[in-house]
Amino acid sequence: MAADAPTVDTILRNALVVTVDGELRVLRDGAIAVAGDRIAAVGPSADVVAAFPRAAQTLDLGGRIVLPGLVNTHVHTSQQLARGIADDVDLMTWLHGRIWPYESHMTEEDSYASTLLCGIELIRSGVTCFAEAGGQFVPEMARAVELLGLRACLTKSTMDCGEGLPPNWSSCSTEDCIQSQKELYEKHHNTADGRIRIWFGLRQIMNATDHLLLETRDVAQKLNTGIHMHIAEIPYENQLIMRTKGIDHGTVTYLEKIDFLRSNLLAAHSVWLNELEIKHFSKAGVKVSHCPASAMRMLGFAPIREMLDSSVCVSLGTDGAPSNNRMSIVDEMYLASLINKGREAYISGTTNPTALPAETVLKMATINGAKAVLWDNEIGSLEVGKKADLVVVNPFTWSMVPLHDSIANIVYCMRTENIESVMCNGRWIMKDHKIVNLNEEEVISSAVKRANDLLERAGINLPKRMNYV
Amino acid sequence: MAADAPTVDTILRNALVVTVDGELRVLRDGAIAVAGDRIAAVGPSADVVAAFPRAAQTLDLGGRIVLPGLVNTHVHTSQQLARGIADDVDLMTWLHGRIWPYESHMTEEDSYASTLLCGIELIRSGVTCFAEAGGQFVPEMARAVELLGLRACLTKSTMDCGEGLPPNWSSCSTEDCIQSQKELYEKHHNTADGRIRIWFGLRQIMNATDHLLLETRDVAQKLNTGIHMHIAEIPYENQLIMRTKGIDHGTVTYLEKIDFLRSNLLAAHSVWLNELEIKHFSKAGVKVSHCPASAMRMLGFAPIREMLDSSVCVSLGTDGAPSNNRMSIVDEMYLASLINKGREAYISGTTNPTALPAETVLKMATINGAKAVLWDNEIGSLEVGKKADLVVVNPFTWSMVPLHDSIANIVYCMRTENIESVMCNGRWIMKDHKIVNLNEEEVISSAVKRANDLLERAGINLPKRMNYV
Repeated sequence: MAADAPTVDTILRNALVVTVDGELRVLRDGAIAVAGDRIAAVGPSADVVAAFPRAAQTLDLGGRIVLPGLVNTHVHTSQQLARGIADDVDLMTWLHGRIWPYESHMTEEDSYASTLLCGIELIRSGVTCFAEAGGQFVPEMARAVELLGLRACLTKSTMDCGEGLPPNWSSCSTEDCIQSQKELYEKHHNTADGRIRIWFGLRQIMNATDHLLLETRDVAQKLNTGIHMHIAEIPYENQLIMRTKGIDHGTVTYLEKIDFLRSNLLAAHSVWLNELEIKHFSKAGVKVSHCPASAMRMLGFAPIREMLDSSVCVSLGTDGAPSNNRMSIVDEMYLASLINKGREAYISGTTNPTALPAETVLKMATINGAKAVLWDNEIGSLEVGKKADLVVVNPFTWSMVPLHDSIANIVYCMRTENIESVMCNGRWIMKDHKIVNLNEEEVISSAVKRANDLLERAGINLPKRMNYV
Repeated sequence: MAADAPTVDTILRNALVVTVDGELRVLRDGAIAVAGDRIAAVGPSADVVAAFPRAAQTLDLGGRIVLPGLVNTHVHTSQQLARGIADDVDLMTWLHGRIWPYESHMTEEDSYASTLLCGIELIRSGVTCFAEAGGQFVPEMARAVELLGLRACLTKSTMDCGEGLPPNWSSCSTEDCIQSQKELYEKHHNTADGRIRIWFGLRQIMNATDHLLLETRDVAQKLNTGIHMHIAEIPYENQLIMRTKGIDHGTVTYLEKIDFLRSNLLAAHSVWLNELEIKHFSKAGVKVSHCPASAMRMLGFAPIREMLDSSVCVSLGTDGAPSNNRMSIVDEMYLASLINKGREAYISGTTNPTALPAETVLKMATINGAKAVLWDNEIGSLEVGKKADLVVVNPFTWSMVPLHDSIANIVYCMRTENIESVMCNGRWIMKDHKIVNLNEEEVISSAVKRANDLLERAGINLPKRMNYV
């Protein structure tokens, strides 16, 4: 190799490289070369090593698995401090008795601490990019994401109408809603070396006027960014829309009617859709974030197989800590496959163990996630020229052996323990199980204190489940 | 304290002790004293420390959680080497194309290696006692359990009829079936310091004559031991029984009719039961092993809430690796709650987030598990005089904080990472994440080699899910 061979920063060699590229190639003794924030080469170890003789660092991965960084497309980072405050309660108690008091008493510093704590769980579950579901304090989220080293689409929770909201939330006019998001976009979009993007948010249809919906559609389109919205979560939502809007099904039918649906829309949950509404999503190119755990707890069984069959891009999300409570896309992969196999018992009388096979689920957590956050030109697969977002998995421990079917074991057996190192934008954000950019113990300790103070301030008292003495 | 105060081996102090006793007491600054294989005291740290001033060892747990050892009531230990061989395939391929060839080519040494590997996963998921679902080589299982330090009810897979079985399995007469189990009982029951018990096994109704069913009932009763049987797994099973036995519902109706149901019967899965059949179980005191992951994949939604409402003792199991594939009762707790909340969507139209609350699930994995394996006089809760089977959980890491609701976090957030130490029969079998009684790396390495050889011998070729190059 000539002395003027291109240089790279890191070569990862001797790995099972699961590219999730267009041909779904898996390299048996593969390597990846990283130059700056991008992938410079993907290929057989011998070829890549030979091509870059002056690589600053070459790591022998000893047969470990390299995956594209996982994408979590629905995360309430500001709810991490609320893990455990709303378990096993009905939906009204969940919202009015727990989540609203919690969120309306949250400070900017609480939000920062919550995002840091959540970020640790995201990184430890192999996530390199996430879509915030909508919180109050986007600048604090951005500050945390910048430090963590993650990639994110951040969104403000936006509402211009609705009953029963906490007093300090209910005063936002449609214009203020749009304007404040424009300002966030101006200030934070494309910051942190391009890792942070600002999206537009809509909490849900019951908290949005038509004016807000259509303004959001137009402004997001003009700014070439995305919209994140909870859609068709519960039967009541659809029933209300049918009653008040005079249509024959739910939210999606109404959103189609007012010409709101676009390919930059990320629809969270999307549980209660009929066949025609799935077609509306498919035709408009709407992306879906399927959150299996949260759906099982609170919402119902989303028609995921039908959406995939109709070429809807379905990705995976964890939702927020009080809805799940694990915030691990690793567990959501396992759940997505299990739950959608089981759901068939109610469609056809028996489960269908062939539904949502492992390779489909792995695509949902990688390339479909990238498409859902409108970033698949740069992330979601391991390909030359894409950003170096990747995960190193050690599959040789008790939880994943034997490895008769590596792809299946990634989806069904992999635990967070197996995730050894995580790189985002060409930099390690976890290396050999150690979070790189912050002191994990200090973040936890500070977050726990803030969480306790916040609950007290919000007046949330949880009933005891057993007899504490 | 007088010089003649009783001595104990170990005091665990400064812990949140979740006793799961009759009053469901949780001690905030609690301690447990262990003498030999039994619990000598449970109480406030100060009291226990004062009562045993000459304890050989006192460990300050720094506020960690102590739980009763978890009980996994349905485990195919001999299938651990088969993890990943039967994912995403229909039930006939699963059985005829994968599991039967695998099991019928298994040697005794394979079974030993498989049980050791499975045992590591059981211990790492906080299990101290399990019920084998039925394998071929009980002496090898017993040898592995003795080494691992676990407690187990071991069972031989028993069949005296049925179509399509592998040739080396189909020749067992009813008498041979009973006799061989009697011999196992003679040789292995109550061995390994009393940690091993021998149960009677029945694979499923389609592989058992009435003669075998009733003989098993009588012999097990005479020997004062249990019976482990797969019951009402799939609709086809019920349909076949209705057709061939002339009854109006499935397996349970038939077993009730022939007076087979007794309180020493552990019914695995029990998915397809109607209301009357639940009453039969309740009346007879039959115990159920609910395996949520396996049920979602292969079987359907068991009527768990209805069984619990009818006072049926429902416990938790993982099933075998090719049906799940995680073999972690920690994950099954999380799943049990989620799936049974979601199941309500099909009963009532919306999910019920209050169904199977955390405290109920924790009881299923502890005291109900102990009852299911007929051992609740000695295990399943932390009480004076019971065997010292316990788990030390570190709840202060990223995956479990904040701890607003400890019981909920144990069920919903705890991961195997949080399980730090496990004691069975008064001895540590895992201490500070290290498996005590065997070399984990050697077990894994040997098991992986055996697994690969076995697959080749059995002629099982798995299709590739992606394009390997």
